Amino acid sequence: MSLPSLRLKANADRRLRAGHLWVYSNEVDVVATPLTGFQPGDQAILEAAGGKALGVVALSPNNLICARLVSRDVKHSLDKSLLVHRLNVALSLRERLFDKPFYRLVYGDSDLLPGLVVDRFGDHLVVQLASAAMERNKAAVLDALVQVLKPRGVLWKNDSSARDAEGLERYVDTAFGVVPEWVALEENGVKFEAPVLEGQKTGWFYDHRMNRARLAPYAKGKRVLDLFSYIGGWGVQAAAFGASEVFCVDASGFALDGVERNATLNGVAEKVTCVEGDVFEALKELKAAEERFDVVVADPPAFIKRKKDLKNGEAAYRRLNEQAMRLLNKDGILVSASCSMHLPEDDLQNILLGSARHLDRNIQLLERGGQGPDHPVHPAIAETRYIKSLTVRLLPNA
Amino acid sequence: MSLPSLRLKANADRRLRAGHLWVYSNEVDVVATPLTGFQPGDQAILEAAGGKALGVVALSPNNLICARLVSRDVKHSLDKSLLVHRLNVALSLRERLFDKPFYRLVYGDSDLLPGLVVDRFGDHLVVQLASAAMERNKAAVLDALVQVLKPRGVLWKNDSSARDAEGLERYVDTAFGVVPEWVALEENGVKFEAPVLEGQKTGWFYDHRMNRARLAPYAKGKRVLDLFSYIGGWGVQAAAFGASEVFCVDASGFALDGVERNATLNGVAEKVTCVEGDVFEALKELKAAEERFDVVVADPPAFIKRKKDLKNGEAAYRRLNEQAMRLLNKDGILVSASCSMHLPEDDLQNILLGSARHLDRNIQLLERGGQGPDHPVHPAIAETRYIKSLTVRLLPNA
Repeated sequence: MSLPSLRLKANADRRLRAGHLWVYSNEVDVVATPLTGFQPGDQAILEAAGGKALGVVALSPNNLICARLVSRDVKHSLDKSLLVHRLNVALSLRERLFDKPFYRLVYGDSDLLPGLVVDRFGDHLVVQLASAAMERNKAAVLDALVQVLKPRGVLWKNDSSARDAEGLERYVDTAFGVVPEWVALEENGVKFEAPVLEGQKTGWFYDHRMNRARLAPYAKGKRVLDLFSYIGGWGVQAAAFGASEVFCVDASGFALDGVERNATLNGVAEKVTCVEGDVFEALKELKAAEERFDVVVADPPAFIKRKKDLKNGEAAYRRLNEQAMRLLNKDGILVSASCSMHLPEDDLQNILLGSARHLDRNIQLLERGGQGPDHPVHPAIAETRYIKSLTVRLLPNA
Repeated sequence: MSLPSLRLKANADRRLRAGHLWVYSNEVDVVATPLTGFQPGDQAILEAAGGKALGVVALSPNNLICARLVSRDVKHSLDKSLLVHRLNVALSLRERLFDKPFYRLVYGDSDLLPGLVVDRFGDHLVVQLASAAMERNKAAVLDALVQVLKPRGVLWKNDSSARDAEGLERYVDTAFGVVPEWVALEENGVKFEAPVLEGQKTGWFYDHRMNRARLAPYAKGKRVLDLFSYIGGWGVQAAAFGASEVFCVDASGFALDGVERNATLNGVAEKVTCVEGDVFEALKELKAAEERFDVVVADPPAFIKRKKDLKNGEAAYRRLNEQAMRLLNKDGILVSASCSMHLPEDDLQNILLGSARHLDRNIQLLERGGQGPDHPVHPAIAETRYIKSLTVRLLPNA
């Protein structure tokens, strides 16, 4: 197989040599190798300005990120053989990490498979294709998954906004076998069912696994409030870890049905109360009703989706966390999470400090968690690190 | 009791209002309140430039950090009553976090007790006094500890270099009851004995507890190398977690005797090999002998003690981590720790990325750990956060 070349401008190879995988369109020597000569999903040999081959890239010629390195060895392009190899490398890590087959199996760039996300729910796989190259190679992706994992069902959950920039349409479709509406999983010894067809993203957020595990010592015997609960990832685990009472707040009745389903599954339904409504409104009402909690978990959807949302987003995080702190009992614990890639951890910490000082209180930062190890960070690609979870204790005043 | 005033210059109250506890000598209005008018360990009412009282400070008038806020309420100065209150607040957190009484009970500023560190080993307490005020109030500190914890023995382990800047001499002395040379503790279900009299710092490093717990899935069934092992905190836990074989390297024969003692205590002595010598030399010898490991733990002493060590220190971290990577088997794991407060986590991450690229390899960052929650971070005081532990996987080449 002979691939065309994609030539970089002078010095544009540096970032890639240092470990990065992406090529921006303004880094391409378009006189030598016009991007207009490529179709979405084409592959090419990436060359430094001097002509030295750097590896194989898959192209999205109309996107700002116009190419992604799929291999540093020019003999290996994106095909079933490479996919099988990379899937096995990804699988061996997860099998080392987890006793049971419930995890993110493939996390895009970090597993050297740009544009591919696979969440595993035992015998069921939920797959997100987020690049033109992965979409074009979907038959190979499916073949490789079936060969390596022998699943009962595979779902294309291709409805993310990332597809728009790639010029891909959005769809949800069963790719292989049968995928039920709700699939079973286990996290930190707690059972769940996740709505993989109708739910958010792949139906479940494995990324907070380790942070939820750390809830246990704080939640035991305590009254817990779970804000933006979705289907109860935090709240139902808190109940299963021995919380005396848990309130789950979410705007979606469908999500709260999931909370009840999951609470029942673990025999803790009588401890869990669902509150349907806007979280900020609910916070006001809980305050007015003089409800107080020992632990509040605030894990909102990304308030900062794009850089230009930064200011408004930070204000929203500030409002949320300050209102959450106001609902804490003496010696209360706030677990404050953010999945906004654009919000650095230090900024979230400063928001918490500022909120506490605004209430004339002191806090201790107890836990600083990120995404679990089935969402590895690619150390050269800042975008692969996005989860923050800070646990603070509101100190009693002296 | 009436305290003298310590007056700040204009705007110097801002950082303190935002949560910080320290006053630098150049922030004091020395015309109004000369620092020469105070003795080390004196207390005063801290006032903003306009005269508003901000709280009570304890002074170290000859130090760059000339005063530390001990209370934001002018009615509460540093005395036995305040100490008892703060100890109870600190204790209630640790009792919530841990089933057994082995932890850092007091972590200075973060527990609003500047200059005081207490490590608890069941009925034995090891105490570090690091400010003139704590030294002067040592009788009250001891009284408070005895009242709150009813220990069998309390040790002053006052031999840290932090005392020099406070003009305090260094000493180690039994403060109360009887303290044996080796005291028992348990961490992550593994038994240890720590040399509290002769060992480093307080004899044990509780700060890496959570990071050591995360060794388990990586170490099980694997061959592990523990560099700068001290008395086996990482290595013996790896063996207890099911490692097939563990090498511990340390320059101190005394520390390695501790490794053997602790390995024996857990019935894993036959799996643990001790190597006495300079770690960088040992790395060369292990390489030459073609020894390879599945997991290498590199947790060195601080290579960057002061800011001016930054360049040399970074070079040392780079050398250590690159040499450690060269000893890894295929699909190997490197746990790279740093306790240098001056080395930001991102810099350590970049050092690991650079080392891997230098070997033409890719890495995944799997775990990003800090100090455990018995070493809370004071969110306004960057110096209270110092532990970094990054776990990376060296990917097989495609």
